Amino acid sequence: MNNGRFGIWLVGAWGGVATTVATGLAALQNGLSERVGLVSELPKYAQLDLADWKCFVLGGHEIRKTSYLAEARNLLDSSRVFSADLLAKAAPTLEAFDKNVRTGTLINVGSTIESFATPATLKTRGEPPRAALGRIAADLKEFRGTHNLDHVIVVNVASTEPPAEGDAAGLPWSELSRLLDQQDRSPVPASTLYAVAAMKSGCSYINFTPSVGSNLPALQELAAETGSLHMGRDGKTGETLLKSALAPMFAARNLQVKSWVGHNIFGNMDGKVLDDPVNKENKVRSKDRLLAEILGYKPQTLVTIEYIESMGDWKTAWDHIHFSGFLGTPMVMQFTWQGCDSLLAAPLVLDLVRFCEREHRRGKTGLMTHLCSFFKSPMGTDIHDFSRQVALLDAWAEEIAARP
Amino acid sequence: MNNGRFGIWLVGAWGGVATTVATGLAALQNGLSERVGLVSELPKYAQLDLADWKCFVLGGHEIRKTSYLAEARNLLDSSRVFSADLLAKAAPTLEAFDKNVRTGTLINVGSTIESFATPATLKTRGEPPRAALGRIAADLKEFRGTHNLDHVIVVNVASTEPPAEGDAAGLPWSELSRLLDQQDRSPVPASTLYAVAAMKSGCSYINFTPSVGSNLPALQELAAETGSLHMGRDGKTGETLLKSALAPMFAARNLQVKSWVGHNIFGNMDGKVLDDPVNKENKVRSKDRLLAEILGYKPQTLVTIEYIESMGDWKTAWDHIHFSGFLGTPMVMQFTWQGCDSLLAAPLVLDLVRFCEREHRRGKTGLMTHLCSFFKSPMGTDIHDFSRQVALLDAWAEEIAARP
Amino acid sequence: MNNGRFGIWLVGAWGGVATTVATGLAALQNGLSERVGLVSELPKYAQLDLADWKCFVLGGHEIRKTSYLAEARNLLDSSRVFSADLLAKAAPTLEAFDKNVRTGTLINVGSTIESFATPATLKTRGEPPRAALGRIAADLKEFRGTHNLDHVIVVNVASTEPPAEGDAAGLPWSELSRLLDQQDRSPVPASTLYAVAAMKSGCSYINFTPSVGSNLPALQELAAETGSLHMGRDGKTGETLLKSALAPMFAARNLQVKSWVGHNIFGNMDGKVLDDPVNKENKVRSKDRLLAEILGYKPQTLVTIEYIESMGDWKTAWDHIHFSGFLGTPMVMQFTWQGCDSLLAAPLVLDLVRFCEREHRRGKTGLMTHLCSFFKSPMGTDIHDFSRQVALLDAWAEEIAARP
Amino acid sequence: MNNGRFGIWLVGAWGGVATTVATGLAALQNGLSERVGLVSELPKYAQLDLADWKCFVLGGHEIRKTSYLAEARNLLDSSRVFSADLLAKAAPTLEAFDKNVRTGTLINVGSTIESFATPATLKTRGEPPRAALGRIAADLKEFRGTHNLDHVIVVNVASTEPPAEGDAAGLPWSELSRLLDQQDRSPVPASTLYAVAAMKSGCSYINFTPSVGSNLPALQELAAETGSLHMGRDGKTGETLLKSALAPMFAARNLQVKSWVGHNIFGNMDGKVLDDPVNKENKVRSKDRLLAEILGYKPQTLVTIEYIESMGDWKTAWDHIHFSGFLGTPMVMQFTWQGCDSLLAAPLVLDLVRFCEREHRRGKTGLMTHLCSFFKSPMGTDIHDFSRQVALLDAWAEEIAARP
Repeated sequence: MNNGRFGIWLVGAWGGVATTVATGLAALQNGLSERVGLVSELPKYAQLDLADWKCFVLGGHEIRKTSYLAEARNLLDSSRVFSADLLAKAAPTLEAFDKNVRTGTLINVGSTIESFATPATLKTRGEPPRAALGRIAADLKEFRGTHNLDHVIVVNVASTEPPAEGDAAGLPWSELSRLLDQQDRSPVPASTLYAVAAMKSGCSYINFTPSVGSNLPALQELAAETGSLHMGRDGKTGETLLKSALAPMFAARNLQVKSWVGHNIFGNMDGKVLDDPVNKENKVRSKDRLLAEILGYKPQTLVTIEYIESMGDWKTAWDHIHFSGFLGTPMVMQFTWQGCDSLLAAPLVLDLVRFCEREHRRGKTGLMTHLCSFFKSPMGTDIHDFSRQVALLDAWAEEIAARP
Repeated sequence: MNNGRFGIWLVGAWGGVATTVATGLAALQNGLSERVGLVSELPKYAQLDLADWKCFVLGGHEIRKTSYLAEARNLLDSSRVFSADLLAKAAPTLEAFDKNVRTGTLINVGSTIESFATPATLKTRGEPPRAALGRIAADLKEFRGTHNLDHVIVVNVASTEPPAEGDAAGLPWSELSRLLDQQDRSPVPASTLYAVAAMKSGCSYINFTPSVGSNLPALQELAAETGSLHMGRDGKTGETLLKSALAPMFAARNLQVKSWVGHNIFGNMDGKVLDDPVNKENKVRSKDRLLAEILGYKPQTLVTIEYIESMGDWKTAWDHIHFSGFLGTPMVMQFTWQGCDSLLAAPLVLDLVRFCEREHRRGKTGLMTHLCSFFKSPMGTDIHDFSRQVALLDAWAEEIAARP
Repeated sequence: MNNGRFGIWLVGAWGGVATTVATGLAALQNGLSERVGLVSELPKYAQLDLADWKCFVLGGHEIRKTSYLAEARNLLDSSRVFSADLLAKAAPTLEAFDKNVRTGTLINVGSTIESFATPATLKTRGEPPRAALGRIAADLKEFRGTHNLDHVIVVNVASTEPPAEGDAAGLPWSELSRLLDQQDRSPVPASTLYAVAAMKSGCSYINFTPSVGSNLPALQELAAETGSLHMGRDGKTGETLLKSALAPMFAARNLQVKSWVGHNIFGNMDGKVLDDPVNKENKVRSKDRLLAEILGYKPQTLVTIEYIESMGDWKTAWDHIHFSGFLGTPMVMQFTWQGCDSLLAAPLVLDLVRFCEREHRRGKTGLMTHLCSFFKSPMGTDIHDFSRQVALLDAWAEEIAARP
Repeated sequence: MNNGRFGIWLVGAWGGVATTVATGLAALQNGLSERVGLVSELPKYAQLDLADWKCFVLGGHEIRKTSYLAEARNLLDSSRVFSADLLAKAAPTLEAFDKNVRTGTLINVGSTIESFATPATLKTRGEPPRAALGRIAADLKEFRGTHNLDHVIVVNVASTEPPAEGDAAGLPWSELSRLLDQQDRSPVPASTLYAVAAMKSGCSYINFTPSVGSNLPALQELAAETGSLHMGRDGKTGETLLKSALAPMFAARNLQVKSWVGHNIFGNMDGKVLDDPVNKENKVRSKDRLLAEILGYKPQTLVTIEYIESMGDWKTAWDHIHFSGFLGTPMVMQFTWQGCDSLLAAPLVLDLVRFCEREHRRGKTGLMTHLCSFFKSPMGTDIHDFSRQVALLDAWAEEIAARP
């Protein structure tokens, strides 16, 4: 698939994950990188005729003012990722991507995120949701037009929002839609606004964060109405990925998990935002839920996420699993995971975009539950066991391969 | 299934695993234990009508002289497993099991294992394989007769043998059989002799150790001829279990494992035997093989097993997994596993016996590959991914449930 | 020293630490235990002529109703410490100790601790501090008289109190003393009341907890006036002990600690009390302070203490130390500490009592700063480097040995 | 001290440690680095008037052919240390250092090390020790002359030699000296030849490796005769450093270490050399000895060092310490140390050179035991407790400060 033109539109366009998506895409387009870490490059998906990396162009919304190269150099300095040589070679591509970044919205993002906004962004404060929607849609339209794109996939990689006020979850689309005209105390968070704009603009929408996004009955309605593809929430990159690979082993062996404690430390901007307890709320809930669903009972669990500045982008998790074996014998498994957050997340974003484009190409709409292995809180399914989730993706791939 | 009578015949009858099997069985028969750690007690296998724990009686072959209670108390003292109260209540049952233990053979067990033998056992030195076979068969026959058993399952839980001399793997049954009359330099290890005796006596045979056992073309032939069930090798209890649960996750995410180092320390008698390099050889090979098969490439690997006396039955593993993520970023996962070796192994032996009895009841013969999830080096299959192995067991269970 | 008679009076007499002190003392008196874990049994202190274990009798104050044997059996069941055999042999001694336990006070202990109190204890609610003081003093007098004791050492091993209201730290003894007649909103916590009663009764006082105890200028005055020995605070048993041994190494090598994160999980009653944030406050402060004092600068630190019920008395700490080496190279040290809380604390209590009796015997009064190695927040000194603290104890021992 | 001129002569001049010494010195001379990781930069040594970094020039012996910049770039690529920017700025200084590197000797270095030699170096094979000595001395003389140096300090940072044949340890200098004329089967290893040459040339000699170096009675004699300063052996950079900081804590608390297991993995050239069992022998012995000396008894110990290529210069150690507490309660401490080998070693080499120059300046000769904190197997002392070793350095510094 080498002759389509596709857009990746990142919400949180100059953040750590987005910067790594951009750098990685630039590297792939310029032949500067192996395919390690990219699920969609596994031989078993070769028959899917996925779009070539050269088919993609990147843009997005952002509330700060910086550039891909500046952010990538920050990551290099603080976290010893990338290489000076790679960045030098990727620079022209990254500078081209920079030109596609537009001003995002601050509606319901919370004061911590707002504190990072530039004056230009702050000027948009007070705009009614409907106006923000219009602005976003116009940006998407311009992006598609300028680059002559066949399809655009909007991916939310912005910092985690605080839980929204009010109960948008109980509303049908007709009512939620009406609330978009309300200037104050809108229950609709920014992530949902972007989802609405994407769907109304004929784009696909993927929510890589724990924010609400399209995870509302009203948005399901809208997706059906507009024929949009969407999926979420919260990219499964580290500790939770391990939980979803390990917990099924304890279950299959009837080893009783008595407690599962997980402590996470890291120092990137996401960490700073999560240091605000209201933003952290959404995240911890997302990391903790799957155990009971896999094990069939609820062990005592504890999950902390702490901002430790010196760690930079290196998220380190320590998990302590206390379990009972035969005759009640207490045993312990512990693991530590030292992963670079953005470098784990970015390839998954690229994979999701590619898989989504493929699904769009064959004319499908609605929730892409076969992508559940990528998410901590997958929409539309209760399956959290990683191997079962991967089996769903493989089945989807086989179905396509069988009927090309 | 409450009215059959089944025998469990343990080779290495008073060893750590066997003692724990005996203690666990006594506990289950006397209502002293929960079902934690027993795979066969999972709700999903409830429809299989597995034999009740009360249907089983236990005996075996051993080269040392001791008793279940003495060995269990050693474990309590050295490793803080069981409880004084449990042992007091289980004592009468354990003493009954003691009466069923008979003298094993020393043929090809190696000098380290031989050094543990009692004078009574040493008297058998020099007996030709054929004579040992006869003795073993007579013991099995007596066991079945005395206890009026419907079926007997022989399980090898003896310490790991050194690799045998000569090339038994290349021989058909007709030739191997002839070699059994040869007194010196027989290429047939003890574990295989027990397997031959079991099959010729109408018993099933399960090899829970890395020793050869029935893992020879000649024994496949014999199993077909005698209509025997068999399976092996090497119970998957700890570090390798984790490898088989974690490696598929690295594969599914295209994270490139650069090196996987595993160090194991423990202090039980198995550890002492494995301290002899010739015995260790078989074991390390068994722990190391699966990575290449799951990952599809061969990372640098290192597996050590070291005897540290103070650890008693507590096997502690430290694994260090060095992997590359996107753009070649090096990351690290480490885990430690602090499990009590006998308490992890014993319930699996009980599960295997129960599943094997069920398979025998429905008239099947040959290799039980659906039990591959229990073994480090499963016979008859290349599947090492733990979730795929469990799926095979579940499919077997569903097949039986569908046609009861 | 085999002919004195000395009393150990434990505040929190049936708690986990106290139960282990009692069990350990009973074991030592009955020849059931090695001397492992007892600092005072090191050969280098042999010349001090410390009191023999047989010289000690044990009693204390408590707000619950139970017995040493019942509590010790709980520890055996929940945490696999002690042995059934040891407890059987120690039972008569433990039952004799039980007879010396009296009802404690609830003044300013906080609602969490209060929730454990028996009806008999609850009846004392509302008694003015002065009345509680009288009751405590009478109990101490009775203990001394009944057992014909040469000296009594009061040791606080009760659960951590919440920080007291008001500012007792600013008051001279004359004013603090006056406040003891005030029934409501007294700023004097229970731990201080016990210290006052001890000093006024001619006893020594040791505070093994982070509660205030004698750590007030007013109490220093009182100690001088009454000629009392005292010391505190907060027994250094695990994670903080390691910090005080490791941080000097980083300092001596000019390795710059960028962050030091410590997570602690455990499940005993102390843990339950610390789960109440007001009680936890005192504790975390005590664990975190020493790093800046040893390193000479303040790295980012994080200390959590979480109640995980399944852990029982096993306190597990994970520490992650992120440091810079030469040319700013970031490196990491991590450790886990799996220690049994009561078994680490109890021998230190016994050591402190013995060292304190020795100091009393030679007629000294005031703060025993040479015991600083035993405390997380040692009174009267800024020395936190463990090796320097031990050097102070050794110097004291040499001084005594030089002038016997 | 800003007007002396001093030479650092590295044996193994282009190896990982030497390259990092050179890069670090270049960085310090050009103001490109903080002083983190340098012991001699601690405020407490400020009064020593140590030589300024600008006073030093660097050269050495080497058997391979490469350059500092090439080796430093290898380290950057394989191990993500240094930065491209730092190397660019340090390049001119490093190129100047390259000019001072001369061909080393292969006598008794073992076949693994020999396999790295260039043809030019291989040409020296067969030269008698006496000839090698002459060559080395001439190189040192030229270095001193060319750069007009006040003093030269020879530091052995070459890969570990295999234990030498024969018993040089039993020989007086008169006999050892005679053996230097013997062409074959000389018992004198290369490290000792360099030491002899250094002492005879008026240089100081420091052995940062486990090789023999000056650790022979004969060399003590020679040092006395020539008035040379010397010290060794084996830089204490990681796991052993931690042992020497932690073991005293176990001793001081009378916690009985039952076993101490340490596994080390790393992937630099030192690791490759240590993969040859004959070279590893010296190293493991050096890492394991101190425990018995600090604890006063010999717990079971195990130390492995394994070459895992992917680790590059990152040496990761896992230590498992199994210890008994009060009443025989078994507990566990584990640590992992993720340190960059060359970056830990290089600043110590620079410190040693500076401290040695200071000692030379005040006219001292013989063993510098006050530098024992820098070595795994310090010569001339049995003190291994790190805090006591540091106290010796501090006492030396105070002595100098008192009599400037």
